[in-house]
Amino acid sequence: MQTSSLEALTTALRCLPGVGPKSAQRMAFHLMQRERAGADRLAKSILHALEALRHCRYCNTFTEDEVCERCRSPKRDASQLCIVETPIDMAMMEQTLAYSGMYYVLMGCVSPLDGVGIRELGLEKLLERVDDGVVREVVIATNFTNEGEITAHFLTEMLKPRPLRVSRIARGVPVGGELEYVDAGTLAQAFRERRSLVE
Amino acid sequence: MQTSSLEALTTALRCLPGVGPKSAQRMAFHLMQRERAGADRLAKSILHALEALRHCRYCNTFTEDEVCERCRSPKRDASQLCIVETPIDMAMMEQTLAYSGMYYVLMGCVSPLDGVGIRELGLEKLLERVDDGVVREVVIATNFTNEGEITAHFLTEMLKPRPLRVSRIARGVPVGGELEYVDAGTLAQAFRERRSLVE
Repeated sequence: MQTSSLEALTTALRCLPGVGPKSAQRMAFHLMQRERAGADRLAKSILHALEALRHCRYCNTFTEDEVCERCRSPKRDASQLCIVETPIDMAMMEQTLAYSGMYYVLMGCVSPLDGVGIRELGLEKLLERVDDGVVREVVIATNFTNEGEITAHFLTEMLKPRPLRVSRIARGVPVGGELEYVDAGTLAQAFRERRSLVE
Repeated sequence: MQTSSLEALTTALRCLPGVGPKSAQRMAFHLMQRERAGADRLAKSILHALEALRHCRYCNTFTEDEVCERCRSPKRDASQLCIVETPIDMAMMEQTLAYSGMYYVLMGCVSPLDGVGIRELGLEKLLERVDDGVVREVVIATNFTNEGEITAHFLTEMLKPRPLRVSRIARGVPVGGELEYVDAGTLAQAFRERRSLVE
């Protein structure tokens, strides 16, 4: 076919999350007609990232070094370890400025529908991390989706026998949220997990 | 910064249409963690397409040859020329099976807000095309957006002095459409451009 390289590009773009056939067509046209410099930069950044990125020996996030900057920092509290699903979630936690401990990035979560079990997450590395003798508290900050909750459950079971404080970030009504617009499940959880105001 | 190649990738992904900072982050993570083979394929297809694709000498669409397959086909009616904005629109027209003439792909449209005037569309090539002595009818099939309509207006003015039949594809209520759900502008146009049923 004459335009095979355009079709190959359209097909290749489908590997991006949330990109269907129509978007892929539009993206391919946009890249070839209006963003040739951007397209070139994109291709090269992908190849460079594939080449350069590896997983931090301690926290498992993406880094170009053996150990990431955060894990090398002496300013962080090494007795706390927060477990998140992705580097994006880690960045979100960092933005809160509410936490200054260490992280462990699972790089995914248990997802039975996608064939990802607890084994596929490669948790030996996490166990090695929590057993380093310095970590005292583990905060599980996986998503509150079904998959994230299953993952949290597995992690809890795994960590229970260890002499660690294990906690989960709180579920409830979002800050600024109105009860009227919160779904019933969230409201029920917020009720069940109500906090005592007078000790 | 340690993860600079991941950040560079995230930034580069922003050149895709409709991709904001959040989507770019998610795409970068997805490519590096779950779709490394797809990422490699994507990078290589972009580079290959940038290298291989050029514009057809006659219809201006993307092709890997001097003249595209469609323009070389002896089966097509060379007396009709349909002007469309993009190769995607051309593919849509082809899907209808209602047209078997030739095409001219503008590769964009007049868009004053983006600084694209009629001159930026490079219409000398189109004029050369319509003046080939074979084309008898030009069908303008640009979009019915403001930009597409301005483009159609410019094209009409440009083609008016020539001994050609110049037409525009019809505007109106979509097939299967209910008047109740059609916007007032479309309905007004459909009324103004009503067709006589009894000659």
